[in-house]
Amino acid sequence: MSTTDSTVDPAVETVDEQQRREAQLVADVVASFDDCADPRLRELMTGIVEHVHAFIRETRLTEAEWSTAIDFLTRAGHITDDRRQEFILLSDVLGASMQTIAVNNAAYGDATEATVFGPFFVDDSPQIPLGGDIAGGASGQPCWVEGTVRDDLGNPLSGARVEVWEADEDGFYDVQYGDDRVAGRAHLFTDADGSYRFWGVTPTPYPIPADGPVGEMLAAVGRSPMRASHLHFMVSHEGCRTLVTHIFVRGDRLLGSDSVFGVKDSLVHDFVEQPAGSPTPDGRVVTGGWSRTRFDIVLAPAGV
Amino acid sequence: MSTTDSTVDPAVETVDEQQRREAQLVADVVASFDDCADPRLRELMTGIVEHVHAFIRETRLTEAEWSTAIDFLTRAGHITDDRRQEFILLSDVLGASMQTIAVNNAAYGDATEATVFGPFFVDDSPQIPLGGDIAGGASGQPCWVEGTVRDDLGNPLSGARVEVWEADEDGFYDVQYGDDRVAGRAHLFTDADGSYRFWGVTPTPYPIPADGPVGEMLAAVGRSPMRASHLHFMVSHEGCRTLVTHIFVRGDRLLGSDSVFGVKDSLVHDFVEQPAGSPTPDGRVVTGGWSRTRFDIVLAPAGV
Repeated sequence: MSTTDSTVDPAVETVDEQQRREAQLVADVVASFDDCADPRLRELMTGIVEHVHAFIRETRLTEAEWSTAIDFLTRAGHITDDRRQEFILLSDVLGASMQTIAVNNAAYGDATEATVFGPFFVDDSPQIPLGGDIAGGASGQPCWVEGTVRDDLGNPLSGARVEVWEADEDGFYDVQYGDDRVAGRAHLFTDADGSYRFWGVTPTPYPIPADGPVGEMLAAVGRSPMRASHLHFMVSHEGCRTLVTHIFVRGDRLLGSDSVFGVKDSLVHDFVEQPAGSPTPDGRVVTGGWSRTRFDIVLAPAGV
Repeated sequence: MSTTDSTVDPAVETVDEQQRREAQLVADVVASFDDCADPRLRELMTGIVEHVHAFIRETRLTEAEWSTAIDFLTRAGHITDDRRQEFILLSDVLGASMQTIAVNNAAYGDATEATVFGPFFVDDSPQIPLGGDIAGGASGQPCWVEGTVRDDLGNPLSGARVEVWEADEDGFYDVQYGDDRVAGRAHLFTDADGSYRFWGVTPTPYPIPADGPVGEMLAAVGRSPMRASHLHFMVSHEGCRTLVTHIFVRGDRLLGSDSVFGVKDSLVHDFVEQPAGSPTPDGRVVTGGWSRTRFDIVLAPAGV
């Protein structure tokens, strides 16, 4: 580029100089982390810098677009409080939460796939016996859920802790009501043969909070804020990798457009509608219709 | 991967399956923008998604690191108000602001290089005559600044608007004092021969605001919040691309570690110290020492 050969095309030389300037800037910023004492932090900062700069260079980001991004982040920060987390929502709708789940839950043989944790888990859910009801007054059609928990070699896991939680048929989790109710959540432990069973409510779709900058973004790109109907599970057993996942309802029209990309084919299950008044597995009398599903769970070994 | 060939190594098959899952997720998120009516918005969202996911996959980001990132953004949002913009600061210290400047101010022949705009420009600066003083009471050693403004063919540009602004020797811009003072900023217009000249103060180093999450990040990685000493310019003339830049002080020990990556070799100038009582270019009586510098500016054509 610094050649004095008079046959060099000045336009080409300018393009080369521009590329040199942009690449040099990336190198300078990366080098600024040379003195970082924590090698992992240095690796992360280097990765952030390389990808942010590549994005700006590849898209030729305008200064107005940069300002829009600053404004978006500012508004996301200002709408976030103890009850609302717009940055997690952003991570969710960009699939970044799901990708983080994916890289931390490597495929392992037949181990059940993980999916997003979501913001509605609560630590101290009530314990119910096998066959108990998690609804606790949550509205919705009764749903019988049963299955087994096994390790990757097929051995039944006795005493595995199964946490389950879900929204009611109005699309709200108990914690969204702000009245301290506990409903649609519980934990139970598997039987000696690794089996579990409980009553819940048939999952129904609901929207993520869409009245902030993330909702505006979804509207601008023509995406829906709706989540596919699902029931959350967290399953743990000594010596096994804890599984955080959902099951989804086969036939739900939202399976292909879940707003947080939580759906995996292997997690879509039949929720079979049962006629009103038909006998239930445990003799419970249900006046209207009910549904049932089965979810057999395989836990990977710990540390994989 | 779905082969039933019994010679397939299950470990290899699991790695393949993991890569397939991660790549499929990226494809699914990118496809979610298929209905976006604005092609540029779609391009930007696709770029953000591809780079965010690549970062997570390449670094194998842990869930704890993801949480730290969410917390960082939340705190940055909460410290940002009308007088403090932590997201711009973050963009600055990652070199993202400078890269945006770079891609929007393509190298063009001998055109003077651009650098960061910074948060301290004010629209309605006072006008001064050629040879006037921008200090307006700002503390610091007097500094005589002179030069020319030309187009890329070498023609002098008469009547070019030259905006200049700088911190005082305590490291503060006028707007940081909160008392409505106007100091260390002005604009003037070039003479018929394209020349300009004014008095300011010799630039000194100062730190960017370091009491928030960005400051904590700089401390964690072992970086200084200090900016190299500089004097801001914004130069405009009809038919030319507006230039936003600084000049830096040759010999400043911070040239190699400017916290926002604003330094370009071509923008480093000699600020020559003058003995106390030595005669000044315009006959002004300066009791102590003073300095002088020269900055000849070349504007690119508009629209390049």
